[in-house]
Amino acid sequence: MDLNQMGQAAKSAATVLGQLSTIEKNRALNLMADELQNKASEILAANKIDIDSAEENGIEGVMLDRLKLDNEIIDAMADGLRQVSSLADPIGEEIKGWVTEDGLNISQVRVPLGVLGMIFEARPNVTVDAAGLAFKSGNAVILRGGKEALHSNIELAKVLRTALKENDFPVDAVQMIDNPDHAIANQLMNLTEYIDVLIPRGSAKFIQMVVKNSTVPVIETGAGNCHIYVDETADLKQAVDIIVNAKTQRPSVCNAMEKLVVQRSIADKFLPMVEEALHAYNVELRGDAATKEVLPDIKLATEEDWSTEYNDFIMAIKVVDTLDEAISHINKYNTKHSEAIITKSYDASQKFTKEIDAAVVYVNASTRFTDGFKFGFGAEIGISTQKLHARGPMGLNELTSTKYIVRGEGQARK
Amino acid sequence: MDLNQMGQAAKSAATVLGQLSTIEKNRALNLMADELQNKASEILAANKIDIDSAEENGIEGVMLDRLKLDNEIIDAMADGLRQVSSLADPIGEEIKGWVTEDGLNISQVRVPLGVLGMIFEARPNVTVDAAGLAFKSGNAVILRGGKEALHSNIELAKVLRTALKENDFPVDAVQMIDNPDHAIANQLMNLTEYIDVLIPRGSAKFIQMVVKNSTVPVIETGAGNCHIYVDETADLKQAVDIIVNAKTQRPSVCNAMEKLVVQRSIADKFLPMVEEALHAYNVELRGDAATKEVLPDIKLATEEDWSTEYNDFIMAIKVVDTLDEAISHINKYNTKHSEAIITKSYDASQKFTKEIDAAVVYVNASTRFTDGFKFGFGAEIGISTQKLHARGPMGLNELTSTKYIVRGEGQARK
Repeated sequence: MDLNQMGQAAKSAATVLGQLSTIEKNRALNLMADELQNKASEILAANKIDIDSAEENGIEGVMLDRLKLDNEIIDAMADGLRQVSSLADPIGEEIKGWVTEDGLNISQVRVPLGVLGMIFEARPNVTVDAAGLAFKSGNAVILRGGKEALHSNIELAKVLRTALKENDFPVDAVQMIDNPDHAIANQLMNLTEYIDVLIPRGSAKFIQMVVKNSTVPVIETGAGNCHIYVDETADLKQAVDIIVNAKTQRPSVCNAMEKLVVQRSIADKFLPMVEEALHAYNVELRGDAATKEVLPDIKLATEEDWSTEYNDFIMAIKVVDTLDEAISHINKYNTKHSEAIITKSYDASQKFTKEIDAAVVYVNASTRFTDGFKFGFGAEIGISTQKLHARGPMGLNELTSTKYIVRGEGQARK
Repeated sequence: MDLNQMGQAAKSAATVLGQLSTIEKNRALNLMADELQNKASEILAANKIDIDSAEENGIEGVMLDRLKLDNEIIDAMADGLRQVSSLADPIGEEIKGWVTEDGLNISQVRVPLGVLGMIFEARPNVTVDAAGLAFKSGNAVILRGGKEALHSNIELAKVLRTALKENDFPVDAVQMIDNPDHAIANQLMNLTEYIDVLIPRGSAKFIQMVVKNSTVPVIETGAGNCHIYVDETADLKQAVDIIVNAKTQRPSVCNAMEKLVVQRSIADKFLPMVEEALHAYNVELRGDAATKEVLPDIKLATEEDWSTEYNDFIMAIKVVDTLDEAISHINKYNTKHSEAIITKSYDASQKFTKEIDAAVVYVNASTRFTDGFKFGFGAEIGISTQKLHARGPMGLNELTSTKYIVRGEGQARK
């Protein structure tokens, strides 16, 4: 199908979808969930085509695992849709309401954005997640997955669309691009007439490619070169526990810790504690010259290390004299995602939270909490690292816009 | 000065500015206001250069008037800054705050966007307005005005910067590009490393040029092809009053009415009332075939008319059978700015406000109220016609982002 036609169809579907009641939207989400489970064997058959061709192409390990679907994963995707149906509907919420000096009643209410574009790599479950969140927030979505998961994605979208079609919901609320050509992705990134916002999901490199090539507004998600700064007043045992959690619990994700910044006055005592704790997880440490004085066996960090998101069992350490130095270092190298201070000093906590420029700034907690579910949003479409529209974990509210409704009794402007 | 250096200087200034207290920011705004009045003769001398060269180039009428400064206008600009100082400071406001299931205290607080780019045509007062609003909201601003007002803009920025510099405020919070080359404007539109958002002000054509050429995120402002729909239940006298106000009070602005949509059952009675009322203001009427049956002397509207923003004493009229037809016509041709229904029907008012896709939707009031001042924001940087980040009149809040501050007691993620 031509992308312009898909855009037009999405826009028409969005018009209908934007007017559905919460009950109707929830019914559709549950029907889509049921259909996923009913059609599990078809989905797994399509997935097998992707897995076979991935293996032929030498894809293995984590990359192959990410592609693989089974009945349990399909059940989890279906449950995900049911969970979205149980979330509060953001649409129609009155955010503010007031009466102006002219006697006009103004309400600012939440409305859908319209048509979302989602462009993503690997994991086919994004198809179902994104379709569910878009649907609940009243938006039509055009999806474009990675070519490795093409057959899985097409089948998943087909199943969701069947559930919509058979129950008289707007079928084009969920559309999947079935042409794996790069040229089509580029066309999608420039389909300004139909797409209100594009949300890329994938590696930092992939997201930067989308940002650079899109004229459709993009919400940048995901890159996280996250720091933890431990000052001289910190509870060092607590600091070690938080670092172990932030670095090792799931190092491949964007809210995992990548860099440790330590105040010089505690370096001699604290750094060996960190080395010992992380040794148990085989974390490779790198450090600046001052760190190497305390931990002589580790590798010297290069300038490149300070800006690198490893997404792996690697961590670089920087020693600083003061909080000011820690703040400038972090503000220089961070990706504006999640940064933490471990301290018992009230003044340091105030200064750090005010001056660090990031979506989420922590005091005495792990950066791993930057997450729509952990924040209590009940959903997550991504973590925005930009400042416009949405910043930090994005739930349903972040997929909405607003409009002002003004009710008068014949007012004209003087 | 090189644009990269300006960007870097703006970013540094923004860091300082973002941490200033409200009292300090207000003091700076008042000092800038005083300095404008103290340096009125220098400003008028610079303005004279622009006026002389405009006259040499054959610029006249409204275009020339827009360029002209006098003592009264300078006083008004200074008072504008003083008024901004009296507005509530958006920075630091806690928008939401809650405790998560893990016992983390989360606050979502307003922070500045960082560095704004303003690119505008003609009127030099935008220099002062934009500088004041940016400063109050904690943002540095890089301004680029039209070449006709180059000397005036440079002098105004110089005066504002003097007030900042002499009082130890970050002088690069306000910077004006003094090179009128188009190439520089293009560079500004792509200065993604330093500029967080670009706000164009000017004609619809100018704004579209900026949207197309920018990789920096743009907030689209201003284009307004505004409709008023009058249904068969309307108080026709009230409808005429609102139409006269919306069409004629200030036809050059974006919230002025451009199109009238009328329900067929009242066309015979209502259209002659409209013609008579607008005749007094020399408004040229154009209409579809059905309108011409009632008002045979008017020009037949073409397809182009339906999507044209005249910004002039011209109005096109469309006759429809039903509310549904009115809504589809408006949603097809409008610029998502301001749309109104005049009705006594509760059902029609509900349907219209729900289904019309626009920043502001009115019942029984003039579209001319779409304005930051009339909305009670105390300021206006523009009217956003896009759905991301801000929609409708933009005041100080719309020049901010947010960050999450998370306070814990050692929490690690399970």
